Amino acid sequence: MGGDYAPYAPVEGCLSALRKSCCLEIALLGNEPLIRTVLESSSYDRKSLKVIGCSEAIETSEPPAAAIRTKKDSSIVRGMKLLKDGDADAFVSAGNTGALLVGGQVIVGRLKGVERAPLGAFLPTEKGMCLLIDCGANVDARPSWLLQFAEIGSAYAENILKIKKPRVALVNIGAEEEKGSSLVRKTYSLLKDFSSVHFTGFVESGDISSGCADVIVTDAFTGNIILKEYEGVSKTIFRMLGKKIESCSGVGSSSSFYKNAIRQVSEVFDVSSYGGAPLLGLKGLVIKAHGNSSAQEICNSIIQCCSFHKDEVNLRICRRLAEEEEALRKLHPDL
Amino acid sequence: MGGDYAPYAPVEGCLSALRKSCCLEIALLGNEPLIRTVLESSSYDRKSLKVIGCSEAIETSEPPAAAIRTKKDSSIVRGMKLLKDGDADAFVSAGNTGALLVGGQVIVGRLKGVERAPLGAFLPTEKGMCLLIDCGANVDARPSWLLQFAEIGSAYAENILKIKKPRVALVNIGAEEEKGSSLVRKTYSLLKDFSSVHFTGFVESGDISSGCADVIVTDAFTGNIILKEYEGVSKTIFRMLGKKIESCSGVGSSSSFYKNAIRQVSEVFDVSSYGGAPLLGLKGLVIKAHGNSSAQEICNSIIQCCSFHKDEVNLRICRRLAEEEEALRKLHPDL
Repeated sequence: MGGDYAPYAPVEGCLSALRKSCCLEIALLGNEPLIRTVLESSSYDRKSLKVIGCSEAIETSEPPAAAIRTKKDSSIVRGMKLLKDGDADAFVSAGNTGALLVGGQVIVGRLKGVERAPLGAFLPTEKGMCLLIDCGANVDARPSWLLQFAEIGSAYAENILKIKKPRVALVNIGAEEEKGSSLVRKTYSLLKDFSSVHFTGFVESGDISSGCADVIVTDAFTGNIILKEYEGVSKTIFRMLGKKIESCSGVGSSSSFYKNAIRQVSEVFDVSSYGGAPLLGLKGLVIKAHGNSSAQEICNSIIQCCSFHKDEVNLRICRRLAEEEEALRKLHPDL
Repeated sequence: MGGDYAPYAPVEGCLSALRKSCCLEIALLGNEPLIRTVLESSSYDRKSLKVIGCSEAIETSEPPAAAIRTKKDSSIVRGMKLLKDGDADAFVSAGNTGALLVGGQVIVGRLKGVERAPLGAFLPTEKGMCLLIDCGANVDARPSWLLQFAEIGSAYAENILKIKKPRVALVNIGAEEEKGSSLVRKTYSLLKDFSSVHFTGFVESGDISSGCADVIVTDAFTGNIILKEYEGVSKTIFRMLGKKIESCSGVGSSSSFYKNAIRQVSEVFDVSSYGGAPLLGLKGLVIKAHGNSSAQEICNSIIQCCSFHKDEVNLRICRRLAEEEEALRKLHPDL
């Protein structure tokens, strides 16, 4: 029931996903009469899709922790309970981000060995896209968390984005080893010495959009700054361009060509078109879809969940983290 | 002698500044024969311009602290000594940023009461520009430093940018008081309770480019991320646009109109065109001009120094900080 276009976009998104994937079962959580009204006009396999009615709803502006504690019959709390009890493998929602983060930690729970669950996000680049991790879940981070984010992000990029040997870079304010905050300097040594990822060193924020790395590791504060500035600067540029060319509408034979070029590049920089943000390191996948998600984005998010389940990404994450811990222990037996 | 176009751009910039301002005296530091060769072809008032020959040069890639310690006869070390000894009011350089930061702290020294000297930078916005402070000098910052940066930035914006009652905002990853890292939450309370600035609350990185505040306060790590991403994302967008429209060169009557529109907006987002970055809170103004500074940028930086001196900005900064300290003491006598 979350997002600006509920229940239509989520219901339509689920129906498209069911058409695309045969081994999928979906439970729709939310206001049952409303959902059934939308479903009525569609044909679908009733064995693959059920509706679970919820009597409460967590609003966008609600304080997350209190909402999760008190609204036991909301779609977010009930959906996450399904994950916790093993009755679902993944949960997709376009609802309250904070409630999803809190619910993920408190209800679903972290995988064994995971210190913190990071939120990933896809950023457009000149060469395609990259995974920014963490972009909003854990402020005031520790080096060991970032080390795990690198492993988790690498496993995700390899299996979901199908990138062989993803290049992992750590965000810093310079390329030299001695630069930056104590957090990034400590994380750098850990990544260099103990991780199994393909670590390419520091990346400056200005180089991310050129596509120089596949997984961009950072703390949630910096990650959120990067994600929102990406959106903010590109939107401002395209708004300014729009105003400038408005006056020339329809003039000249090449005007549609230029407008198309500008529209195409602006679409590349529309962060919301790249599918939902995965909350990783939990006992099940939670995907935060954008508030303004279309049926297409919901469908893409669900397809992402299928690959996550089929390729046993959580099992791979656990293996990577266990190996990393062993490497750390070998060199520092007293840890 | 710093920057890509030395000695031509710095010398030409000084000569333009001298033509624009009558109460200005300039000392050019660097390779004397080279500087004199450039000067030879120009007419200027010899009383307002002298050359101080330096036998050493700090290169761009040199480790800053060692360079400042060992290269006593470099233009940076000698220029900063002039400030320290009261023989100059301001120092402009397009050289090694790290060396300027270290030299500012070690040679020039901080104003009384200043805990850390922040580096400011001008960012283009939809409505003009804003001052981002700190954008590179002090990583691992403390709340009391950021409180001072707000006062220092406000004084600068008021006197140099001539903005009455500049709106000061603190960078965070959400607008609500309880959001963000412990650093920003603590700084928020300090700014709300003890500062004399016109504090408008938190600003998210995505809203900076819309022009919602005049002074953007943050720690050097986050500030540098913001500054470089601003440049990176806008450059990528205009490069992609350039590639897309290349194929249509010269076709249609409106093509030059569109190309102009794109060029104009791209110029707005060219961070390097907004003049040098002031290193503030020192016993004299240090301006770091861009490595690729043109004569125009050098000239603008020097004119900025004139206003700084004329309007006694350092005196104003000292007064603000003293008032703020008194406010803090009144409420916390044990501090």
